[in-house]
Amino acid sequence: MNGDVAAQPMFSAYCPVFQDAVELIGRRWTGAIVRALLTGSNRFGEVLARVPGLSDRLLSERLRELEQAGVVKRTVYPEVPVRIEYDLTEKGRELEAIVGGISAWAEKWLTAAE
Amino acid sequence: MNGDVAAQPMFSAYCPVFQDAVELIGRRWTGAIVRALLTGSNRFGEVLARVPGLSDRLLSERLRELEQAGVVKRTVYPEVPVRIEYDLTEKGRELEAIVGGISAWAEKWLTAAE
Repeated sequence: MNGDVAAQPMFSAYCPVFQDAVELIGRRWTGAIVRALLTGSNRFGEVLARVPGLSDRLLSERLRELEQAGVVKRTVYPEVPVRIEYDLTEKGRELEAIVGGISAWAEKWLTAAE
Repeated sequence: MNGDVAAQPMFSAYCPVFQDAVELIGRRWTGAIVRALLTGSNRFGEVLARVPGLSDRLLSERLRELEQAGVVKRTVYPEVPVRIEYDLTEKGRELEAIVGGISAWAEKWLTAAE
């Protein structure tokens, strides 16, 4: 066992909602899509252009999942041609601290040659 | 475009190391395994018992990946029977804030009936 008292965490060893959240956020491309939406890209083509390697089909699928999860709101503007925007909901915007935390960790630990 | 200046994030739209980190952390079971290690489980059987649905094979695979990524350190104690412990490295322990952030978000947003 780990005897370091200071290392005691403030959460339980397993938590089903944590598991749901990490599977949602961790699904391939989802992190990158949320990151692009956080930085103000809200058109399908903009997000697609920002995320190298992401296909049309997978972006559609992920946006639909995020919409179903209440993280993204899809708005259709009845113009010609029709304009569709994807915005983060409040629930989605609150992922910013997590995205920021992962970025900070990644910049510290994954950029140095290992 | 989003006209809310206060919502401007402090990171770029796409970042390859963020992508590497989110794919590492987001891989199926990895979040739960890191969470179990953070809470002081450091024997293979302890982690296995803490994470419902995780198989022997996948736990071995994930621990090996985390060891290769420098997140987990495996120590073999030459006793009879041999004792093996898995501990988070400094790099691994610094995932605690991210795990905590995801937990807080999940507790706020995923526990209410939707």
